[in-house]
Amino acid sequence: MEAKKFMILGGDNRSIELANLLYRDGHNVTISHIEGLSFKDPDIIIGPLPFSKDDKTINAPFHIEKIPIEMVFERINKDQLLMAGNIKEDHKKKAKDYGIDFIDYFGREELQVLNAIPTAEGALKLAIENSAITLHDSNVLILGFGRIGKVLAKMLYGIGANVYVAARKTEDIAWINALSYRAVRLNQLDEYMDNMDFVFNTVPSLILNKERLERLHRKALVIDLASKPGGVDFKWAEELGINTIHALGLPGKVAPVTAARIIKDTIYNILEERGI
Amino acid sequence: MEAKKFMILGGDNRSIELANLLYRDGHNVTISHIEGLSFKDPDIIIGPLPFSKDDKTINAPFHIEKIPIEMVFERINKDQLLMAGNIKEDHKKKAKDYGIDFIDYFGREELQVLNAIPTAEGALKLAIENSAITLHDSNVLILGFGRIGKVLAKMLYGIGANVYVAARKTEDIAWINALSYRAVRLNQLDEYMDNMDFVFNTVPSLILNKERLERLHRKALVIDLASKPGGVDFKWAEELGINTIHALGLPGKVAPVTAARIIKDTIYNILEERGI
Amino acid sequence: MEAKKFMILGGDNRSIELANLLYRDGHNVTISHIEGLSFKDPDIIIGPLPFSKDDKTINAPFHIEKIPIEMVFERINKDQLLMAGNIKEDHKKKAKDYGIDFIDYFGREELQVLNAIPTAEGALKLAIENSAITLHDSNVLILGFGRIGKVLAKMLYGIGANVYVAARKTEDIAWINALSYRAVRLNQLDEYMDNMDFVFNTVPSLILNKERLERLHRKALVIDLASKPGGVDFKWAEELGINTIHALGLPGKVAPVTAARIIKDTIYNILEERGI
Amino acid sequence: MEAKKFMILGGDNRSIELANLLYRDGHNVTISHIEGLSFKDPDIIIGPLPFSKDDKTINAPFHIEKIPIEMVFERINKDQLLMAGNIKEDHKKKAKDYGIDFIDYFGREELQVLNAIPTAEGALKLAIENSAITLHDSNVLILGFGRIGKVLAKMLYGIGANVYVAARKTEDIAWINALSYRAVRLNQLDEYMDNMDFVFNTVPSLILNKERLERLHRKALVIDLASKPGGVDFKWAEELGINTIHALGLPGKVAPVTAARIIKDTIYNILEERGI
Repeated sequence: MEAKKFMILGGDNRSIELANLLYRDGHNVTISHIEGLSFKDPDIIIGPLPFSKDDKTINAPFHIEKIPIEMVFERINKDQLLMAGNIKEDHKKKAKDYGIDFIDYFGREELQVLNAIPTAEGALKLAIENSAITLHDSNVLILGFGRIGKVLAKMLYGIGANVYVAARKTEDIAWINALSYRAVRLNQLDEYMDNMDFVFNTVPSLILNKERLERLHRKALVIDLASKPGGVDFKWAEELGINTIHALGLPGKVAPVTAARIIKDTIYNILEERGI
Repeated sequence: MEAKKFMILGGDNRSIELANLLYRDGHNVTISHIEGLSFKDPDIIIGPLPFSKDDKTINAPFHIEKIPIEMVFERINKDQLLMAGNIKEDHKKKAKDYGIDFIDYFGREELQVLNAIPTAEGALKLAIENSAITLHDSNVLILGFGRIGKVLAKMLYGIGANVYVAARKTEDIAWINALSYRAVRLNQLDEYMDNMDFVFNTVPSLILNKERLERLHRKALVIDLASKPGGVDFKWAEELGINTIHALGLPGKVAPVTAARIIKDTIYNILEERGI
Repeated sequence: MEAKKFMILGGDNRSIELANLLYRDGHNVTISHIEGLSFKDPDIIIGPLPFSKDDKTINAPFHIEKIPIEMVFERINKDQLLMAGNIKEDHKKKAKDYGIDFIDYFGREELQVLNAIPTAEGALKLAIENSAITLHDSNVLILGFGRIGKVLAKMLYGIGANVYVAARKTEDIAWINALSYRAVRLNQLDEYMDNMDFVFNTVPSLILNKERLERLHRKALVIDLASKPGGVDFKWAEELGINTIHALGLPGKVAPVTAARIIKDTIYNILEERGI
Repeated sequence: MEAKKFMILGGDNRSIELANLLYRDGHNVTISHIEGLSFKDPDIIIGPLPFSKDDKTINAPFHIEKIPIEMVFERINKDQLLMAGNIKEDHKKKAKDYGIDFIDYFGREELQVLNAIPTAEGALKLAIENSAITLHDSNVLILGFGRIGKVLAKMLYGIGANVYVAARKTEDIAWINALSYRAVRLNQLDEYMDNMDFVFNTVPSLILNKERLERLHRKALVIDLASKPGGVDFKWAEELGINTIHALGLPGKVAPVTAARIIKDTIYNILEERGI
């Protein structure tokens, strides 16, 4: 790829690391400053992940003053490419009103796939840390066989756990068997609960309800990786004395440098596809 | 599942084995005879895979006389369920004209996924048999990351090969990396050819063309698993002195009993979904 | 095995858990009390791991008063079996003087092998926790291919790391290759240092000396699993700004319940071999 | 390594391939001819594997005339290094009488370890070829956990079989568990027999005796990898209708080029250790 002019706008540690990685690849990289925020130079402006936390300003924890979203849209011109991660529909629409093509790198499938890796490693760490037994030779149940389910199953299997995966679709059940995990059909899930040492949830709906939690061994550890509100009746689990962890945003916490690399690779793919 | 009345109509070894498996599960099972072909009893009639090879008669190598397709359609009544594998559109339409709901078990995703397993084992066998080196520590290239590509990659990796997988979609590239194989983008495929000991093709279009074959090491072994006409310029390969194998229909050849089990499980899924 | 009378003497959490496990297996289990320390009943007395930390008293952190080693030897009679873990030669000799057959369960090979599992999981946790990158797709170097090296290599490979293992013996090099890791001969170790993200040492002698540390990337993480004084020049690493962790006694810390199970299984093996 | 003068003496395909590999590494390589057999030039003379099949002449299937062992010993001088594979004690002694240091490369542990790889792949091929079911998801029992047992277990596990390994030593049982296979103690072997689809023997003594064969499923496949007379009562198996294969010398048959590479690497190790 030819050297380009990038500007990093706001963001946390990952954005800083992303700036480093782009610079090391030979690109020209600037970092946004609120004073005299100017977008004269860059070809591509890379906003943070998520784009905004308050719906008014850019997510920019390292900036002393707030950067209003509108200010960014006003100052960018149509030749420049604006990207960010996890952009709400409202903001996309508003950008469109300004004539800006606002690209969400977080919505890309390859980023989601690769982000499952630090998520799974973070889950492993939490499991080892919060249990008195080894993952090796323990019974672990993964709820859901999407991206995180697939990567987590592979890693737990690689460590030597007895990996059970629960899924609804017959196609997923076939894949779970083909990959040598133990398939659990959702309608038979209840029967498996009392034999599990660890349960990892990836399904974003209330799958670990009161009834299922009651079937669970009191010493089991539940790690919920589904985005808020998750898939666990946390209150009920607490009453039952079952240890639960709702782990969110693991990639940025567990492996910010890897997370930045994944964003970089995704941005490169976007640029390549657009012939930039 | 409640005991049902099955009839096995035509078919090869797999159909015989399927009859055994259904019988052992406690079902009532009959096998078709051409003399006085009658469908009075069975709830479910299970035709062969493929349904027909000549477009006129049922695929029934163990029958002395031919069974015309029309004869079957005429004699079945609407309360009975008719299934077969790999049914052409024409036959489906004709069945519809007779008011018959004709189900193709071969079109089911879970069967296709599980069939990738005997296919991959057959490919392993061919590779070991037709090469003077071990798969372990050799460079193997898999073209395509669909069902067969995924299962074959896992097995080759499990044996200790250096597994390269070529795919077009960025999403597949991400998965290939996530699963610890070495990803090759299709547009960079040429560069990798000369370093490969084995090439397994799963892509049903001419991917191993003259140019790419010429880049291949003369001692490399090419195994084409894609349905006819495959993805290899076989004539050119022969001229170059490259050993090629076009391996088709592996599940029925390599593991007829497992192939029958997969069909049985798929039929059970179909029945369950239909509440039968 | 027939039900036996066990007594747990001193020890930490693992000893408590061991008492639970033996009880659940149907044995009669008592726990030592300093007041009126009596060994009348038990067939088998199981001391702690390590047996003593001060060479005078039993390692018994949960006891309010100290239990002198001599007191135990005096009160046990010859029909009873006394075991403990990691017993010093002096104490074995003294026991012999009292006519006691004092068995060290920690010296058993199967315990050492199985203890490598919680050790490796603890090392994984430390690595994930103390690095900004994922283990997946990073370069990890394991120094030594003994019990811990073997188990750790397998787990890191299972997570998707690029696993390098350094060993001296040609036989070990062959095994490292056979298991699909990347073999590094000790005399070529220097060349590999600068490319590593993680280094795990299992060799109990100064292998990571000044020279090798200097070749290491400053952002690499060094985890030393070798018993004191370990195999790393820790001071020099600190001066270089390299992050090091000397992780000791991981089984008891990371997975006390699993550690207790391992001790229990080892004790059962000992009893079986002695026909008890 | 500096370029050396090698002479290949007798041997089968592997010896020819070995000559090629040494030549490609830049060495001077000659191949023995019976007419005027002269050892003037070479530094190192590499005999075949096995050294002799009739105890009188060199194993040299490609030579028209026989090469008497004595002739070789007479013509070699003490500065030259003579190696061969699988040399009987008698021949070593006789060589010593001639003042020749006769080295057996086949006795080297690293060669034995690496030879387990083509052996295991050959066993996989035989198993796939001679069974109507897939290895994936079948129950396979490996008798013995030496070099071949270890490599075969890993490959079968990698293909997705349910791997049981029977061993006698508690240490091996611990390793089998640590590596996530299912451990079978030899004294409990009988109970497992009737549930196995494949049995691979690596133990060179009669382990599959009449009693155990009778417990085996009639459709099970037995592959014996132990050197003659093997570990199976073959006659009894035949009477019972159990399919057995005694597979010997697999490396040279399945992967002669890999086998030659392994010999080459072993010879290099020998030379390096001797400072040659």
